[in-house]
Amino acid sequence: MRSSEFLITTHKETPADAEIISHRLMLRAGLIRKLSSGLYTWMPMGLRVLRKVERVVREEMDASGALELAMPMVQPAELWEESGRWEQYGPELLRIQDRHQRDFCLGPTHEEVITDIVRNEISSYKQLPLNLYQIQNKVRDEIRPRFGVMRAREFLMKDAYSFHADATSLEATYGVMHGAYTRIFERLGLDFRPVMADSGSIGGNTSHEFHVLADSGEDAIAFSDGSDYAANIERAETVDQQAQRPAPAKALNKVATPGVKTIADLCAALELAPETTVKTLIVEGAEEGLVALVIRGDHELNSVKAEKHPLVASPLRMATEEEAEAACGAGFGSIGPVGLSLPIVADFSAAACADFYCGANSREEHFEGANWDRDISDYQSADLRNVVAGDPSPDGKGQLQIRRGIEVGHIFQLGTKYSEAMNARVLDETGRNVTLSMGCYGIGVSRIVAAAIEQNHDDRGIIWPSAMAPFQLAIVPLNMHKSAAVAEAAETLHQECLALGIEVLMDDRNERPGVKFADMELLGIPHRIVIGDRSLAEGEIEYQGRRDADSQRVALTEAMSFITAQLTSGS
Amino acid sequence: MRSSEFLITTHKETPADAEIISHRLMLRAGLIRKLSSGLYTWMPMGLRVLRKVERVVREEMDASGALELAMPMVQPAELWEESGRWEQYGPELLRIQDRHQRDFCLGPTHEEVITDIVRNEISSYKQLPLNLYQIQNKVRDEIRPRFGVMRAREFLMKDAYSFHADATSLEATYGVMHGAYTRIFERLGLDFRPVMADSGSIGGNTSHEFHVLADSGEDAIAFSDGSDYAANIERAETVDQQAQRPAPAKALNKVATPGVKTIADLCAALELAPETTVKTLIVEGAEEGLVALVIRGDHELNSVKAEKHPLVASPLRMATEEEAEAACGAGFGSIGPVGLSLPIVADFSAAACADFYCGANSREEHFEGANWDRDISDYQSADLRNVVAGDPSPDGKGQLQIRRGIEVGHIFQLGTKYSEAMNARVLDETGRNVTLSMGCYGIGVSRIVAAAIEQNHDDRGIIWPSAMAPFQLAIVPLNMHKSAAVAEAAETLHQECLALGIEVLMDDRNERPGVKFADMELLGIPHRIVIGDRSLAEGEIEYQGRRDADSQRVALTEAMSFITAQLTSGS
Repeated sequence: MRSSEFLITTHKETPADAEIISHRLMLRAGLIRKLSSGLYTWMPMGLRVLRKVERVVREEMDASGALELAMPMVQPAELWEESGRWEQYGPELLRIQDRHQRDFCLGPTHEEVITDIVRNEISSYKQLPLNLYQIQNKVRDEIRPRFGVMRAREFLMKDAYSFHADATSLEATYGVMHGAYTRIFERLGLDFRPVMADSGSIGGNTSHEFHVLADSGEDAIAFSDGSDYAANIERAETVDQQAQRPAPAKALNKVATPGVKTIADLCAALELAPETTVKTLIVEGAEEGLVALVIRGDHELNSVKAEKHPLVASPLRMATEEEAEAACGAGFGSIGPVGLSLPIVADFSAAACADFYCGANSREEHFEGANWDRDISDYQSADLRNVVAGDPSPDGKGQLQIRRGIEVGHIFQLGTKYSEAMNARVLDETGRNVTLSMGCYGIGVSRIVAAAIEQNHDDRGIIWPSAMAPFQLAIVPLNMHKSAAVAEAAETLHQECLALGIEVLMDDRNERPGVKFADMELLGIPHRIVIGDRSLAEGEIEYQGRRDADSQRVALTEAMSFITAQLTSGS
Repeated sequence: MRSSEFLITTHKETPADAEIISHRLMLRAGLIRKLSSGLYTWMPMGLRVLRKVERVVREEMDASGALELAMPMVQPAELWEESGRWEQYGPELLRIQDRHQRDFCLGPTHEEVITDIVRNEISSYKQLPLNLYQIQNKVRDEIRPRFGVMRAREFLMKDAYSFHADATSLEATYGVMHGAYTRIFERLGLDFRPVMADSGSIGGNTSHEFHVLADSGEDAIAFSDGSDYAANIERAETVDQQAQRPAPAKALNKVATPGVKTIADLCAALELAPETTVKTLIVEGAEEGLVALVIRGDHELNSVKAEKHPLVASPLRMATEEEAEAACGAGFGSIGPVGLSLPIVADFSAAACADFYCGANSREEHFEGANWDRDISDYQSADLRNVVAGDPSPDGKGQLQIRRGIEVGHIFQLGTKYSEAMNARVLDETGRNVTLSMGCYGIGVSRIVAAAIEQNHDDRGIIWPSAMAPFQLAIVPLNMHKSAAVAEAAETLHQECLALGIEVLMDDRNERPGVKFADMELLGIPHRIVIGDRSLAEGEIEYQGRRDADSQRVALTEAMSFITAQLTSGS
């Protein structure tokens, strides 16, 4: 493809209203253009990338036995009333009326429509399991669309829905989808993690999110460096290490700590490492009264875990300083488990400490050398904190790392939520009428493009993984409009690449070399050949990979075999 | 693909509310399912067909130098207000409000959005011509959706828009698109005609419609059997053949015609062929008074042509019988051009008649042996009638045929309609600011599927052209669940076909042979292999093409080479 026959619409300026790097680079590279808030046109260059993602998704879905169909975007209200979501779904559901004042919506998701199709078409367990998917623009009327295609109002999504006569079959297909998603993100060349997740508002039981790792990600995820374990940080478990608790070595001793209010103050005043201290948080109990939660000084309370504890009220409510003082005899900053008359729940890590520092329940005093059992007899232990980097993995293999991620896929075992509400049943092997079990499996196809850029860029622009690059190779002839030798060498190489099916962009625009280099780097094309008079006089051209620091000379006669080798070695 | 791993949802019953054959067959074959009025889901089998059409369209658009992009379906009202269509477009435009009460519509077409993009991105003639297209679901809120996907509310369309610095460039790209459309419909294996058309409400000058020929088509089109000439019947021209008019041979003679009111009456009474007669229609004149239009007895007045004549009022108004009698001296049925005191316009064919029969402007009397010039001195001639089969083609090559067609494509030279309203300009070679010229080019991708069925079916079902078939080959094993030999032969053949990349459907459902045969025929799969115990005992299988009357035996050892030969010979 010649640049002159394509549409390159790059910008030098960084757009003012783009907050994150992928949004800025997609606008600057001319991949997308904003039509209205949260509505973007995919320009020819961007669409080439989007289609590559779409193709990989489609191929892996097909290979997994899923069948593609295409449901309308416009959906009648009646089905949403049947499921109950016409009322439940907020203003993100874009509701419309047709010319006859009948209610419709623009589909943000298609559980209702697919369940309606399946209840009409499928009557026997023999036709199951069935996994149906589509790749389609969805509409969600986000209250604050932002980050370009990362959180847009109209976006391209792959949504799949599986139907089963029983939970075992659902679990099997769920596993197949987990594998397909893994292959999709592997083929796309992305650093990603499948992560155990709460299934949130869609309902159901088991669910996994697939995250592309990137520092700008909205979610924090924990994963093991020694196994496949990965979970949302809210959900990742800590390990009970009380068995490794050392025996007490120091005597309990009260220390004056004037002006100390926080763990940081305490560590500064006594020159301590925070992991030798514990903090005590007073919260409302599940029954009447208060409960003390004890966390190691360097850890953070995980409120989801805390409110699941039987002694603790849900939702979690922290005691006021007045309530705490009345119950403990001291205000915040000086509370501790020794001699406390409240029920005590110690986090596993706090409970594994010996000879630790803690508040003495007396104004501006702390204990040193505190020990469980010896000094505090009545307590329970539980998992109450967020995991931190270096924690042992809950599966016993390796240590946890914490990274930020961008959610690009989500798989759910929905169970019977929709099929029950919409009366979708089949006859099972025994002739009994059973409610269908259902799974759903989403991938944010357009969001993947932005996530890939968040993960792969430098200060010159995008660095596409090979599978997503709009073109594999850029040929940049210098001053080709003046040099016949350059023009001829470039044209020949271009034709040879096309003949081999290489996705090549020859930049035949009448632009300065610097403009062409900057554009090809901004566009993130993995491989670049520069053809100029000076090197050509020596029978050579210049090659540079997008991640390479420098270019290298290649003999013109070796150019095609060199290019082919570079392309097949991956980027 | 095994039927058991696919989703076949055929019906025997003809759906009650489907009026045309394609709608009935698409429902019966399970290609589509109705979600709501004018909203259809493309089931896996139907989507395979739709995607094949889409791919051919995309390949030919790409080959023609057009660039694909993807604009949002949801469009802001502001742009439609700029073009003036927010007011002009009727209730077919589905208007919506977002959560902030801002106005949007669901795009029925994208002239405004693309013009907005181009005016922002393109500043110089050097970047032109530019032809941008997308393949996308469109929404039109039809007042009476019907005929299934033929006239749906949500449908798949390819829409392209080209931009030019001058009209010459527009004409060149228009020609390229005409060629691309021709190749698309040729590759799809459809009998079609590109037809000159009035450009209708989209505005502009030149336009062509592409029609798939089918008896059920809503439009009548005329085309030459000796050239590429084709036009909508309202627009097809007749040829002035007055030069071939014979010399008068008979004397003018008045004949009594009691009870004769119509041409049919006259022909019956005098045993005449209608082409030896003329009829005279009295219409309102462009100035005051009436005008007589003379048409050969076997022809029909074309009102579009008549009202374009300078002597005739537009819109056309027929005189009442009282007005006609007052002006001509006789009522309807006895009016003729001889001795008439009104301005006379004779259709070219009527003016080419000699020795003809006509009303004598006297109650129940006609003339025989009437002749122009000799008997009627003051008249004009013009093209006033609809063409009929057998008319000479206006380009002088061959004769016209009349067929009915389904419009599946439409190309327009829009000129500056949108670019003027939306102020889309570029600098031309001389540095002058010029308004962009624009073309637009649509194809009804989903409608093509229905049109192909209207053209290709029999009483057993669909007969797909090879390029559109969901599968090329059906393998139908008989009683494979009982016969190990049948199962083994079928599995082997299935694997061999898959290895060659043949799109094969092996019907391994546990159904009676009659059910399988009926389904494969209904689905229109071009080639079918039947494997049964009886023929297999003789080392043979049975082959039948979808259009064949009978099956033929083929040696099992020759099966693959036979199948390959059938598939490559086309169907």
